Amino acid sequence: MISDEATARQLNADVEVNAISVSQAVETRRSIKVFDPAHRMSEQEVKWLFERAILSPTAFNIQHWRFVQVKDIALRKRIRALAWDQAQVTDASILLVLCADLKAWNKNPHRYWKNTPKEIQDSMVETMRQFYGNDAQLERDEAIRSCSFAACSLMLLAKELGYDSCPMDGFDFAEVARLINLPKDCEICMMLPIGKALEPPYPRSGQLLTSDVVFTDRFPDE
Amino acid sequence: MISDEATARQLNADVEVNAISVSQAVETRRSIKVFDPAHRMSEQEVKWLFERAILSPTAFNIQHWRFVQVKDIALRKRIRALAWDQAQVTDASILLVLCADLKAWNKNPHRYWKNTPKEIQDSMVETMRQFYGNDAQLERDEAIRSCSFAACSLMLLAKELGYDSCPMDGFDFAEVARLINLPKDCEICMMLPIGKALEPPYPRSGQLLTSDVVFTDRFPDE
Repeated sequence: MISDEATARQLNADVEVNAISVSQAVETRRSIKVFDPAHRMSEQEVKWLFERAILSPTAFNIQHWRFVQVKDIALRKRIRALAWDQAQVTDASILLVLCADLKAWNKNPHRYWKNTPKEIQDSMVETMRQFYGNDAQLERDEAIRSCSFAACSLMLLAKELGYDSCPMDGFDFAEVARLINLPKDCEICMMLPIGKALEPPYPRSGQLLTSDVVFTDRFPDE
Repeated sequence: MISDEATARQLNADVEVNAISVSQAVETRRSIKVFDPAHRMSEQEVKWLFERAILSPTAFNIQHWRFVQVKDIALRKRIRALAWDQAQVTDASILLVLCADLKAWNKNPHRYWKNTPKEIQDSMVETMRQFYGNDAQLERDEAIRSCSFAACSLMLLAKELGYDSCPMDGFDFAEVARLINLPKDCEICMMLPIGKALEPPYPRSGQLLTSDVVFTDRFPDE
């Protein structure tokens, strides 16, 4: 548990990080397709990323995310073939398949509240059961929200390590699920290659304006 | 379009930001329930948040997100009543309802690629049609992914402004949709109050370990 800034600095000392602010990371993060295939991230760097990504928020602290880091070269090649042969799948320093357990709310759920009194644990477990127990769409939406929060954290944290990323959902989900032995209650949310960019990104292809997407109080009538 | 760091620094000069790194923001971001109801964010700060949140990634650059900032006090009270009377709905400095247009991929889609040659635009539009045209679940998953990326960016960017947030999906989605006049192709992804915390967060209630959620190459057999 990382709960104060002193701890954070201590852990940060394990790896070399850039002095990059949140806004700089948001502004300079772009989807990169061309990575240095010779570059490898250290185990410490990968650990640094995961230890922080799992601090992302989830409803009821369910932490639906399950991360598969594909290290096996042959497996990465097979996944690349299932992803329109996109080079970043094999060439990025690491390849993550971000999965989510849709039934995580019902799997030993007291653990999500283990630091609280027993009556709060019981209350949360019962509330989760009522909230998700009869709503498969909500279960799925929730798992995707959680996993996407972790993905966004990973993309921005990668910038702090000097790396880039490429969020992907252009691949055969069912076949990749088979290759990674995806458990029955889980769904793949996306893949995320992270590595050393070899080429700058293209200019942004067509940014909407805030005036296109921000409304006050309510949407105008259609 | 914010494409280089010089531009970023210039824009940042409009508002006062904290020297906080991505990892510091990730580590210190917690869901806050008690906000200073007297605090208001400046228009510049809100603009700063939105201008950056819309730089989050989306598949095919579709930018599904639609943000409703609820300013009307009476409306915020009505929404609070639809959210188990949770105080952060009215007491945070701003209340955002994050929505997503599930059919955004099919609404004047050339605009998402307007800075590219005509043949690329046409190709992307056709690819989007094939990708989403017959898959309602994928349409919905994609919209939620996009909106969740923007939400995560907003939560971390808020930390840079010295603010906290509370991602929420504990409310009556259908009734809030009615109050904000949600268009027919849109879904609410979540609500996000942002403001000045009055109380520190509780300790983390039950953090899973990386060893619980990170796997190499494939999941073990169940």
